[in-house]
Amino acid sequence: MDKEFKISYPGSEKVYINGSIHPSVRVGMRVVNQTPTVTIKDGERIEKSNPSIYIYDTSGPYGDKDAKIDLEKGLPHLRQVWIDERKAKDADNISQMYYARQGIITPEMEYVAIRENMNCSMLGIVTHITPEFVCREVAEGRAVIPANVNHPEAEPMIIGRNFLTKINANIGSSATTSGIDEEVEKAIWSCKWGADTIMDLSTGQQIHETREWILRNSPVPIGTVPIYQALERVDGVAENLTWEIFRDVLIEQCEQGVDYFTIHCGIRLKNVSLAAERLTGIVSRGGSIISKWCQTHQRENFLYDHFDDICDIVARYDVALSLGDGLRPGSIYDANDRAQFAELDTMGELVQRAWAKNVQVFIEGPGHVPMHKIRENMERQIEKCHGAPFYTLGPLVTDIAPGYDHITSALGAAQIGWYGTAMLCYVTPKEHLALPDKEDVRAGIIAFKLAAHAADLAKRHPGATVRDNALSKARYEFRWKDQFNLSLDPEKALEYYKASNNVGGKFCTMCGPNFCAMKISHTLCDE
Amino acid sequence: MDKEFKISYPGSEKVYINGSIHPSVRVGMRVVNQTPTVTIKDGERIEKSNPSIYIYDTSGPYGDKDAKIDLEKGLPHLRQVWIDERKAKDADNISQMYYARQGIITPEMEYVAIRENMNCSMLGIVTHITPEFVCREVAEGRAVIPANVNHPEAEPMIIGRNFLTKINANIGSSATTSGIDEEVEKAIWSCKWGADTIMDLSTGQQIHETREWILRNSPVPIGTVPIYQALERVDGVAENLTWEIFRDVLIEQCEQGVDYFTIHCGIRLKNVSLAAERLTGIVSRGGSIISKWCQTHQRENFLYDHFDDICDIVARYDVALSLGDGLRPGSIYDANDRAQFAELDTMGELVQRAWAKNVQVFIEGPGHVPMHKIRENMERQIEKCHGAPFYTLGPLVTDIAPGYDHITSALGAAQIGWYGTAMLCYVTPKEHLALPDKEDVRAGIIAFKLAAHAADLAKRHPGATVRDNALSKARYEFRWKDQFNLSLDPEKALEYYKASNNVGGKFCTMCGPNFCAMKISHTLCDE
Repeated sequence: MDKEFKISYPGSEKVYINGSIHPSVRVGMRVVNQTPTVTIKDGERIEKSNPSIYIYDTSGPYGDKDAKIDLEKGLPHLRQVWIDERKAKDADNISQMYYARQGIITPEMEYVAIRENMNCSMLGIVTHITPEFVCREVAEGRAVIPANVNHPEAEPMIIGRNFLTKINANIGSSATTSGIDEEVEKAIWSCKWGADTIMDLSTGQQIHETREWILRNSPVPIGTVPIYQALERVDGVAENLTWEIFRDVLIEQCEQGVDYFTIHCGIRLKNVSLAAERLTGIVSRGGSIISKWCQTHQRENFLYDHFDDICDIVARYDVALSLGDGLRPGSIYDANDRAQFAELDTMGELVQRAWAKNVQVFIEGPGHVPMHKIRENMERQIEKCHGAPFYTLGPLVTDIAPGYDHITSALGAAQIGWYGTAMLCYVTPKEHLALPDKEDVRAGIIAFKLAAHAADLAKRHPGATVRDNALSKARYEFRWKDQFNLSLDPEKALEYYKASNNVGGKFCTMCGPNFCAMKISHTLCDE
Repeated sequence: MDKEFKISYPGSEKVYINGSIHPSVRVGMRVVNQTPTVTIKDGERIEKSNPSIYIYDTSGPYGDKDAKIDLEKGLPHLRQVWIDERKAKDADNISQMYYARQGIITPEMEYVAIRENMNCSMLGIVTHITPEFVCREVAEGRAVIPANVNHPEAEPMIIGRNFLTKINANIGSSATTSGIDEEVEKAIWSCKWGADTIMDLSTGQQIHETREWILRNSPVPIGTVPIYQALERVDGVAENLTWEIFRDVLIEQCEQGVDYFTIHCGIRLKNVSLAAERLTGIVSRGGSIISKWCQTHQRENFLYDHFDDICDIVARYDVALSLGDGLRPGSIYDANDRAQFAELDTMGELVQRAWAKNVQVFIEGPGHVPMHKIRENMERQIEKCHGAPFYTLGPLVTDIAPGYDHITSALGAAQIGWYGTAMLCYVTPKEHLALPDKEDVRAGIIAFKLAAHAADLAKRHPGATVRDNALSKARYEFRWKDQFNLSLDPEKALEYYKASNNVGGKFCTMCGPNFCAMKISHTLCDE
């Protein structure tokens, strides 16, 4: 793997801001420098400058033109000093929640406070998101900073409904497809387009090695579903799984640096049969594996039984738990059914057990849900799970559009994000049909970035409108390049723009020179 | 233009059902015939049949393999007999509303009742949508059947919030782009993917001829913005427009067969200046032209002044009026502002003036609106406009995604559709950047078809879940072809599916053979 991976955005540069509580904190952000607004008045050219716009940036060192990238060596260890200091003091529990509950603001907490706010602070907009606020949200379990001590390469980020809505991108090879190179490339590609976390869902051979490459080269937290690797250990025979096999996989992945685990501990033996009432049964891979195990042995889910043991393991690494919704609905028909809500009740119980051990935890959610049932999902999750963050897959608001499920799911995602979901798991156009390639990953991420941003606007998150307003002003003033540079996908916008024949014109490319509303509007609205 | 345009859908056939009130009514629908569900029990193969699914079909004669298409001659005159009969009796007013208010069920009304319901009636599901109900909704102005007597080729359809949510596709050449052939092809292509109406927004040369070709070959209603042609008559100088010029254009287009007109009568001289408070001024082409005229002459909008004259003209042809929102917001910043709502108030007044003359009327809506302001738009429209149907452009829920505005707008469209918007005007990926090509039209239509369907599900429209449930059952049973045939874009789904290497497998193409949740689920959930 010898490619030089670099990420660049047009009209942008990478800037850093330092922490004040922890001077070693150095938060990277992308700044888009705008051109001035030019007007001609009485034959005189008047220039008015436009502010630089700061954009939350997930590209890590790849987006820094001065950084030296060597995939063989991995990324620099941004967090190592902080981790070493803490490790010198504490041994068994070093979670962000552990410190937060003592009122200790870790460097990670200050990092995310600066990161969430930089677009505001550079424009002088004051927000409620301070390091103290971050600390309180983590202490109370409403937000999670997934940050395995063995993944010092990752830049801290926070998942919680009082922060910017985050998105996750799934990558990973399967038995027959794609190699390690391709998955690492997808991981970096995901960071370029704005993925806040990445889940490596690899199955098949080379599962450990693939993950190692991804971890060492990822500037964002990495999540996994450890049961996949456990299943490989028993040659795909779910019935042969044991707690011991699973535990060993868990420790291996903790040691390696995975930041959060999806674990399907919410499935109970007594609830498995509820899926038989469904149109589409169980559509979660982990859920079906565990259900099969429970049914075959007629025994309680060993992940539920050993939940406290799981917490003890992950607490030592500050790995966060993502309680997987193994009984999520796989169709509109099955949405909000007994199986789904029974699992949610169990998750609520587990949240409290995790918190008792200072383990950071969040909850996975559906799936397929028609719009009128989305709010119930969100409100019930907050109530039953005591305010722990919600992390949903979509939801897809109709089943009838295979090939376009990045859109059907973005529709649901924007709404559930508005109602309070903290992180949205993307869906690509190939959902239900095939594994995504690079262009699918891009399409899925952009669809979810815009859904997440729409949610932030609707939540009236501080500073959320800054980018919209700057882009719209640029659009209205025919500053085409500024408009594109401020957009989620400047390359695509430019590509489409060039397809028109009016490049550089002082009129809309759709309207043409004689019919441009905005052009006429200027003659009306300008002083 | 000698191409043979035919539309076919895989695994489908075109069927017709006749009216009972009017035996000459013959409604076309697409039926998807499913394969049986096959299970093996004790070595024995058991087949259970699956019902045929009826799908609302906008393909007209193009979707009938037996129909002979000749673009030079145009489509058969489906409605001619009905129109001739009515014309023999009445002269000055022959609108659907005129008849509805007398309790007369026209063939068009029976047609749409059958069309809206066929997917239910063939499965024995009883709904509230009867010819009598259609008649009542039209009488009370809550629904519109756009049906110019001079467009007998069009299949009747209804726009109203108690019916299926409809979508419109915009096509049309501009000064420098695309010829007549291309636009006719786009029109038929739009019908293939499910456009319920088409707006021909052509500007530039050949505006009359382009429209003629589209009208004679369109099985769906055609809308236009007559001010565009009027502006061509005055060489693009808005100030030189007069009522007489506009009136002549209106009559020309009525004679030609346009089914509905977007007219920006809602702009008042006193409100034009409100746009000066905005970030992005006036972004409606018609709105900017009229505003310019008002401002220059310091006179009231001649379209407002002559609104009763406009009604008298269109009533004679049963052309519906779509009151254009010339002051719709063009950015998140401008949403729900004084300018927009001032225009809405005027529209409410005009609705009552149109109804006084039995003219069918609906209202155009924004634009750019963040999610938390969408509901206010809908509720205010219903209140101020006395329940007349709402027809919105999107709305786009964020400004930051040029190149993906089919998605930002589908997000808003699904929600406003759920709240009660009757027709959603599509937006393509090229919005703000260039005129759409054929693939953009397809992408825009599918995004809006799925948004409209999601709205129907959320409104709990009768029978809306039929297609979702059938598709999901096919998905769960690995009846891949049935799944694709039932989807909005079977070709795309099949294309993506083939990109995986598991074609025909009894497992998910994403999960692979050893990790397929649905496969495992069958071992759990099947008896």
